[in-house]
Amino acid sequence: MQTVSENLAFGGLQGVYTHASDACACDMTFGLFLPEIAQAGPVPVLWYLSGLTCTHENAMVKAGAQAFAARHGMAVVFPDTSPRGPHVADDPAYDLGQGAGFYVDATQEPWAANYGMWDYVSDELPTLLNEHFAVDPTRQSITGHSMGGHGALTLAMGLPGRFASVSAFAPIANPTASDWGRKQLTAYLGKDEAAWAAHDATLLIRARGFDGPVLVDQGGKDQFLDLLKPESLSHAMAARRQAGIFRMQPGYDHSYFFVATFMGDHMAFHAQALGL
Amino acid sequence: MQTVSENLAFGGLQGVYTHASDACACDMTFGLFLPEIAQAGPVPVLWYLSGLTCTHENAMVKAGAQAFAARHGMAVVFPDTSPRGPHVADDPAYDLGQGAGFYVDATQEPWAANYGMWDYVSDELPTLLNEHFAVDPTRQSITGHSMGGHGALTLAMGLPGRFASVSAFAPIANPTASDWGRKQLTAYLGKDEAAWAAHDATLLIRARGFDGPVLVDQGGKDQFLDLLKPESLSHAMAARRQAGIFRMQPGYDHSYFFVATFMGDHMAFHAQALGL
Repeated sequence: MQTVSENLAFGGLQGVYTHASDACACDMTFGLFLPEIAQAGPVPVLWYLSGLTCTHENAMVKAGAQAFAARHGMAVVFPDTSPRGPHVADDPAYDLGQGAGFYVDATQEPWAANYGMWDYVSDELPTLLNEHFAVDPTRQSITGHSMGGHGALTLAMGLPGRFASVSAFAPIANPTASDWGRKQLTAYLGKDEAAWAAHDATLLIRARGFDGPVLVDQGGKDQFLDLLKPESLSHAMAARRQAGIFRMQPGYDHSYFFVATFMGDHMAFHAQALGL
Repeated sequence: MQTVSENLAFGGLQGVYTHASDACACDMTFGLFLPEIAQAGPVPVLWYLSGLTCTHENAMVKAGAQAFAARHGMAVVFPDTSPRGPHVADDPAYDLGQGAGFYVDATQEPWAANYGMWDYVSDELPTLLNEHFAVDPTRQSITGHSMGGHGALTLAMGLPGRFASVSAFAPIANPTASDWGRKQLTAYLGKDEAAWAAHDATLLIRARGFDGPVLVDQGGKDQFLDLLKPESLSHAMAARRQAGIFRMQPGYDHSYFFVATFMGDHMAFHAQALGL
């Protein structure tokens, strides 16, 4: 593992690190914020999964999470959204290939060789963090924006017992029924839709729910409402009697201004679930 | 004036606007955050001047000012750092020409035609804001980072009575004695150093001071300490008995992580001076 940069921020350390990934068969870069109190011992960790076109960096510099993470005493990890590199399969569209991993383990060509994002985020990167940093693997929560909200919700439900809480900002909520989903799930997982069900938050809520609190924020003027399908998730949460909160925020769009506006609420929500 | 974008943020509106500028003889773009309470009437306004290589956008998306501006009920304006465009004089160096206006009115060729940044920030843009937005010209404060900290301090002292308070993050504090200054002041204002004195915060503090409170934060591990010369400003402030606070923040560098870390303090400082 190599250190790309380390900046003091809010009394803690905002680092960026690169390492050779087995899951993605390429070098992967991630951001990690460690609050000052991590110097005294392992702290709970919040996973922040980013959206289409993002790298590890966008949320790290624009979402404003560190101020709250420092206050609550939790780490925040910002993984990249896909494998990267000239030898990694890609597509000219912004919503497939590099920058658009969708947090699945691809089984189809040409993606299978590198696109192991579920494996990377659920197994390889946690192991690396636990080895090298003062984070407590028994106290984890997860959040994300857009495609990353999809990833947060599906990982939370796909790994029961792993996360104390899950939240999402404008998640791709029902990808098996959306052009942000059907295209990518077909490409990465093949045409058999049975393989898609584990990667659709609405279907997962219906089928099993999440054993902890859920918080979802959605902007009422999001330019991608038709692709995100928040009403499907909201319906599923209520029908399931899922412990959680779904908030429609009038006037907000899909930008990081929306994410930053409600970041404090999400961090407080996770802090409470993590016993901070 | 044309609207480039408007995003709801923290209950207020983060806008980006373009207009034809006389002072810079080109189109200029600026960001403006208006808190929700501005819908009820004009609000105080904080000027945020940015540093070398920045546009209006960097601080707008990375400094975290809007959360505090919304809470205090003040507007924040983010001007660009220079004139822009293919017909505007430029230099291959990052610290001269486009992105490096230094907040002066250039008198030398080839800069004089467009580089009227003092005029732009002190006169043309305030007039435009007062005409089009709910901001109160009788309640203004100013801040900035690096070259923008230099601009904030020099404008505050150069326009007595205009600003209730001034603050700076890692300002270029003594440009007449630094390679971040001598090169640019020579290029823009000529070799006669007498013309430079109005654009050096340390010299201005010595000569006249500021009729209000001053707050300066400087990172102790800033990679540009030799160019910024904070010790000159700190000495001048103390020697002048200038009302103000100079804070050396150990471990912090020159990045926006440093700025964001202390943004809340600066916003509270200005809010108090503005009677909020």
